[in-house]
Amino acid sequence: METVAENKCFGGVQGVYTHASKATGCDMTFGLFLPEEARDGPVPVLWYLSGLTCTHENAMVKAGAQGWAAEQGIALVFPDTSPRGEGVADDDAYDLGQGAGFYVNATQDPWKPHFRMWDYVAEELPALVASEFAIDAERQAITGHSMGGHGALTLAMGRRGQYRSVSAFSPICHPTASDWGRKQLTAYLGPDEASWARHDAALMMRETGFNGPVLVDTGTQDQFIDLLKPEALAEAANARRQEATLRLQKGYDHSYFFVSSFMEDHMAFHAEALYA
Amino acid sequence: METVAENKCFGGVQGVYTHASKATGCDMTFGLFLPEEARDGPVPVLWYLSGLTCTHENAMVKAGAQGWAAEQGIALVFPDTSPRGEGVADDDAYDLGQGAGFYVNATQDPWKPHFRMWDYVAEELPALVASEFAIDAERQAITGHSMGGHGALTLAMGRRGQYRSVSAFSPICHPTASDWGRKQLTAYLGPDEASWARHDAALMMRETGFNGPVLVDTGTQDQFIDLLKPEALAEAANARRQEATLRLQKGYDHSYFFVSSFMEDHMAFHAEALYA
Repeated sequence: METVAENKCFGGVQGVYTHASKATGCDMTFGLFLPEEARDGPVPVLWYLSGLTCTHENAMVKAGAQGWAAEQGIALVFPDTSPRGEGVADDDAYDLGQGAGFYVNATQDPWKPHFRMWDYVAEELPALVASEFAIDAERQAITGHSMGGHGALTLAMGRRGQYRSVSAFSPICHPTASDWGRKQLTAYLGPDEASWARHDAALMMRETGFNGPVLVDTGTQDQFIDLLKPEALAEAANARRQEATLRLQKGYDHSYFFVSSFMEDHMAFHAEALYA
Repeated sequence: METVAENKCFGGVQGVYTHASKATGCDMTFGLFLPEEARDGPVPVLWYLSGLTCTHENAMVKAGAQGWAAEQGIALVFPDTSPRGEGVADDDAYDLGQGAGFYVNATQDPWKPHFRMWDYVAEELPALVASEFAIDAERQAITGHSMGGHGALTLAMGRRGQYRSVSAFSPICHPTASDWGRKQLTAYLGPDEASWARHDAALMMRETGFNGPVLVDTGTQDQFIDLLKPEALAEAANARRQEATLRLQKGYDHSYFFVSSFMEDHMAFHAEALYA
């Protein structure tokens, strides 16, 4: 692992690191915020998964998360959204290939060798940060925005017991029924839709739910709301009687101005679960 | 004036607007955050001046200012750092020409026709935003980062009575004695150093001071601290017995991770002056 940058931030350190990833077979870059409390011992960690076209950097500079994480004594990890590099498959579209990993393990060519973001985010990177930094792997929570909200919800429900709480900002809730999903799941997982189900938050909510609290915010003026389908998640969560707070925030859109506006709420929500 | 974008943000609106500027003779773009309170009547305003290479956008997305401004009911204006466009003079260096206006009215060719950022920030833009938005021109305060900290301090001292309070993050404090200053003041104002004095915060502090409170934060690990010369401002402020809080923040550097870390403090500082 190599240090790209470390900047003091809200009393802690905002770092950027690269490492050779076994899961994705390429070098991966991630951001990590460690609060001041990490000097005295392991702190809980919140994963922040980003959306289409983002790298590790977008949320790190635009979500306004570090201040609240510092207040709560929580570390933040900002993974990249896909494998990257010259030897890694890509597509001209913004919503497939590099920058659009959709947090799955691809089973189809040409994506199969590198696009293993599920394993990377759920297994390899947690093990790495817990070994290299003062992070308590027993206290993980997860959040994300848009495609990253999809990743957060599906990982939380798919990796039972790993995350104490899950939240999302304007997540893709029902990709198997959306243009933000069908194309990518076909490309990465193949045409058999049965293999898609465990990468669809609404379907997983119906099937297994989440063993902990759920918080989801979506803006009523989100320009992509028809692709996100929050109603599908709401219906499933209500049918299951899932412990959940699903909010539609009046007037907000899909931007980081929306994300930053509710970051304090999300951080307090996760802190309650992580310090319980 | 044209609206480029408006995003709901912390209950208010983060907008981006363009207009044909008389002062600079070109189209100018600025960001404006209006808190929810502006629906009920004019609110006080804090000017945020950005540093070298920045546009109106950097601080708007990275400084984490809107949340605190919303809490205090204060509008924020994020002007650009120079005139822009094909007909506007420029230089290959990052620290001269477009993106590096230094908040002066240029008197020298080729800069003279457009580089009038002093007038733009102090006169034209305040008049525009007060006429187009619910902003109370009687309650202005000013802050900035790096070159923008220089702009904030020199405007505050040079435009007596216009601003109730001034703060700065890692400002260029003594440009007449720095490589971040001598080159630009020569280019924009000519070789007569007497004309530079009213664009040097340390010299102005010695000469006139500021009729109100001053807050300045600089990181002890600022990679540009030898160019900023906070000691010159400190010496002048102490000699004058200026009401001022000049802080060196341990371990912080020149980045927006530093700016965002202390934004809450700066906003509270200005709120106290604006609501006095």
